[in-house]
Amino acid sequence: MNKTKEVEMVLGNLAYAVTMLEDCPEFTSLIPEVRVNLVYALPKAKTPKEVAAVDGRITAVRGLPHAPGMPTFSASDHMARLILEVRKYDAEANAGINFKCDQTVIEVVQEYCSERGLLSGWIDRTREPDEVAVRDGASMPWKIKQLVARYGAIPRLFYEGEGWGKEPLFVALGKDAVEVTTMAIEIARRYREKTQR
Amino acid sequence: MNKTKEVEMVLGNLAYAVTMLEDCPEFTSLIPEVRVNLVYALPKAKTPKEVAAVDGRITAVRGLPHAPGMPTFSASDHMARLILEVRKYDAEANAGINFKCDQTVIEVVQEYCSERGLLSGWIDRTREPDEVAVRDGASMPWKIKQLVARYGAIPRLFYEGEGWGKEPLFVALGKDAVEVTTMAIEIARRYREKTQR
Amino acid sequence: MNKTKEVEMVLGNLAYAVTMLEDCPEFTSLIPEVRVNLVYALPKAKTPKEVAAVDGRITAVRGLPHAPGMPTFSASDHMARLILEVRKYDAEANAGINFKCDQTVIEVVQEYCSERGLLSGWIDRTREPDEVAVRDGASMPWKIKQLVARYGAIPRLFYEGEGWGKEPLFVALGKDAVEVTTMAIEIARRYREKTQR
Amino acid sequence: MNKTKEVEMVLGNLAYAVTMLEDCPEFTSLIPEVRVNLVYALPKAKTPKEVAAVDGRITAVRGLPHAPGMPTFSASDHMARLILEVRKYDAEANAGINFKCDQTVIEVVQEYCSERGLLSGWIDRTREPDEVAVRDGASMPWKIKQLVARYGAIPRLFYEGEGWGKEPLFVALGKDAVEVTTMAIEIARRYREKTQR
Repeated sequence: MNKTKEVEMVLGNLAYAVTMLEDCPEFTSLIPEVRVNLVYALPKAKTPKEVAAVDGRITAVRGLPHAPGMPTFSASDHMARLILEVRKYDAEANAGINFKCDQTVIEVVQEYCSERGLLSGWIDRTREPDEVAVRDGASMPWKIKQLVARYGAIPRLFYEGEGWGKEPLFVALGKDAVEVTTMAIEIARRYREKTQR
Repeated sequence: MNKTKEVEMVLGNLAYAVTMLEDCPEFTSLIPEVRVNLVYALPKAKTPKEVAAVDGRITAVRGLPHAPGMPTFSASDHMARLILEVRKYDAEANAGINFKCDQTVIEVVQEYCSERGLLSGWIDRTREPDEVAVRDGASMPWKIKQLVARYGAIPRLFYEGEGWGKEPLFVALGKDAVEVTTMAIEIARRYREKTQR
Repeated sequence: MNKTKEVEMVLGNLAYAVTMLEDCPEFTSLIPEVRVNLVYALPKAKTPKEVAAVDGRITAVRGLPHAPGMPTFSASDHMARLILEVRKYDAEANAGINFKCDQTVIEVVQEYCSERGLLSGWIDRTREPDEVAVRDGASMPWKIKQLVARYGAIPRLFYEGEGWGKEPLFVALGKDAVEVTTMAIEIARRYREKTQR
Repeated sequence: MNKTKEVEMVLGNLAYAVTMLEDCPEFTSLIPEVRVNLVYALPKAKTPKEVAAVDGRITAVRGLPHAPGMPTFSASDHMARLILEVRKYDAEANAGINFKCDQTVIEVVQEYCSERGLLSGWIDRTREPDEVAVRDGASMPWKIKQLVARYGAIPRLFYEGEGWGKEPLFVALGKDAVEVTTMAIEIARRYREKTQR
C-alpha cells in the first residue's frame, strides 16, 4: 500500500473512532485533567510527525465528549512517543488512548481484562531512577522496558501511577484507533454503572 | 479492498482536506450563506448514507474556515445526491465541494479552467420545468442531465444559477476530497487577489 | 450604564441563549440551510459592528445544535441590519433569531402566536419592486416597512417567503437573545411533536 | 444590580476574554497539559455552581487557542474552588486563569510583576502536611493560607509548584476575566519573545 493510502486510512480510522466517543456520554466520566489523547501511528513511523492524533485532544462540552479539531499528524508528543516505544516490543500495537485512572477504574479494567484473558499492568513511577527522570527522552524507554520486564509482554491496558508533577493515567493499546476506542467505551460503560450504584 | 478500508480512506481523505481548508484564510471569502459542504462517496455508494461529508458543514470562526464536526456518513443530503447523480455519467467523480458564486468567482473559475484545459459550465435553473421542480427528487437528475446535454460531459467546475428559494452556488468535482479542495483553495487565492486589487 | 457593561450584558445574554439551544435536541429540526443567526444589538447600535452574533452561526453536529464560535460583534451582516431596521419602529426589539420556514412551521407559529396573543406576519418577497431589489441596502428598509404597513406594527414572529436566490426563513424578535431563544425552543418542541405524529 | 444582570455580565466578560485569547497565537505556548481554565465568580458566589468557566477548557487547534464550548456555570471545579477561597482574603479577586509553569515563565512573570509593582509568589506543595493532602477539600484552604502567610496578601500572579500527581501551574488573579486574560496575553508575548531568541 502506498504512503498516501496509509495516511488516509490512519486519519479515517481516527475520525471514525472520534464519532464513536462523541456518541458515548458515559465516556465523559473517564476524561482526565490532561484531556484524552487518541493516537495512531503509520506502519513505519519513526517520529511523532508520523503519528496522527486528535488536534486539541478530546474534552467534554455540555457533558459530552467533544473533539475540537481534526485527526492530524504531529498533534501529539507524549502519547506519540509512547506508541513508538511500545511498537519496538509489540509490532501490532499501532494505536493508543489514555483515560482517567482511579481506584474504581483500576478495578473495572482488571475485571474487563480477566474476562477477556487480556494482560493488564502498571508502571510504578516511584521506581524511576533519578538519572532517567532528568535526562530528556529517557523516561519513555525506561517505562516501557519496565512493563516488559515485569509482565513479559506489553499489557493491552496499563496505568502509569502518579508521579512528581504527573497525573496518573490509564492507556489502552491496540491495532488501530477504533479498537482502542471500543475498549475505552466498554470500560466507560462499566465504570458508569459501578459508580452510579 | 474491503468495505472497512474503503470507509477509512474516504473519511481520512476528508479529514486531511478539512485541515487544508482550515489552514487557508483566503477560503473564508468563498464560504456561501449555506456554508460549505465537502462530500466524498464510497466506490459503490447508492444512497446518501454511503456518502461521507463534514458534519455541521464548514463555516468561518474568527475569520478562518472551521469544521465544527468530523467527516461522517449521512451528514449531507443535497450534495450527496448530487455526487451520486454525477457519478452515473462520470465514474471518476467521487467527491465534490460547493462554494460561493458571484460574478468575480465566475471569472476566476473561467480563467482557472481555460489555463488547465478543464471544462466549466452552469445550470440554468430558470429552465427547470415546473413538473420537475415540484416532484420530490426530480430536480437533481434533471440538472445533471442538462449539464451533460449542454457540455457533452460533466464539467469539473460548474455553478447552479440562483433559483426560487436557492442561493447560486459553485460546485467543484474530482476523484477525491483532497483534489476538489486543492481546486477550491487555488480559486480562493485568485479570488482574494482579484478582489483586493 | 456604561458601554463596557452594556457590551458584557449583550455577550453574556447571547452565551446563555446558546447553551439553551445546545441543550435542546429538538431545535436541530429548525436549522435552515443558511444555519441559524442569533443577534443582539447594543442599546444605541447604529451599524452591524454594534450588533453581536454567534460567530460561525449555529449549526448541527452529531444531531445537536452547536455553536462553533463565541458571541462577538460584527459577526453578522444580514440579521444585524434587520434588527437595526426593526428597531426604528419597535424600540424594544433588540434581538432576533432566524430558523427554518416550511408549511408545518408556519402552522405551529400561528398556533403559538394565537395562544399568546402575539402578532405574526410574513413578507411577500414577490412584491419587492425591481428598483428596490437591485439597489444596495434598499431591500431591508422596504421589507420592514411592508411589515409595518400590513400589520400596523412589527410582528414578533414573521417569515420572509422564498425569493430569487433566497431561502424562506422565519424570524423571531424580542427584547434579548434569551427571550427569542425561548420562543424558538418552544416552537421547535411543538414542531417535533407535530412532525413525529 | 439584580442576579440576571450579574450572570450576564460575568458570562459576557468571559466570552469577550475568550475571543482575546483566540486572537493571540502566542498564547498557545502557555497552554499546559491540563489545558486552560478561565473562571469568573458571581459577586456573592459560595459554591462552584456560581462560578462561570469556559466549558471544555481552552485548548489549541491548528496551533491557535480555541474554546470548544461556551462560558457557563458549574463548568470548573478546581479553579472555581480556588477563586472562592482566594476571595475570602481579597474581595476584589473575582476571576482567575491558569497557564503553563516552567523556569522561563517564572522569569517572565517576575520581570512583569516587578515592572508593574505587582506581588508575585508561589505555593510550595512539598510543605503540604499529609493530613491536609488526604482530607477531601482541605488542600485549597491550606494553599491559599500559605500564600497569605508568606506574602502578607494574595499575590496577583503565583504558581503552584509541581506536586505528587500534579502539573506545576501558574495562576493570574484579577477583578474580571478580561483583566486576567490581558495579563496572561502580555506574559505569553514576552515568553514567546524570550524563547525565540
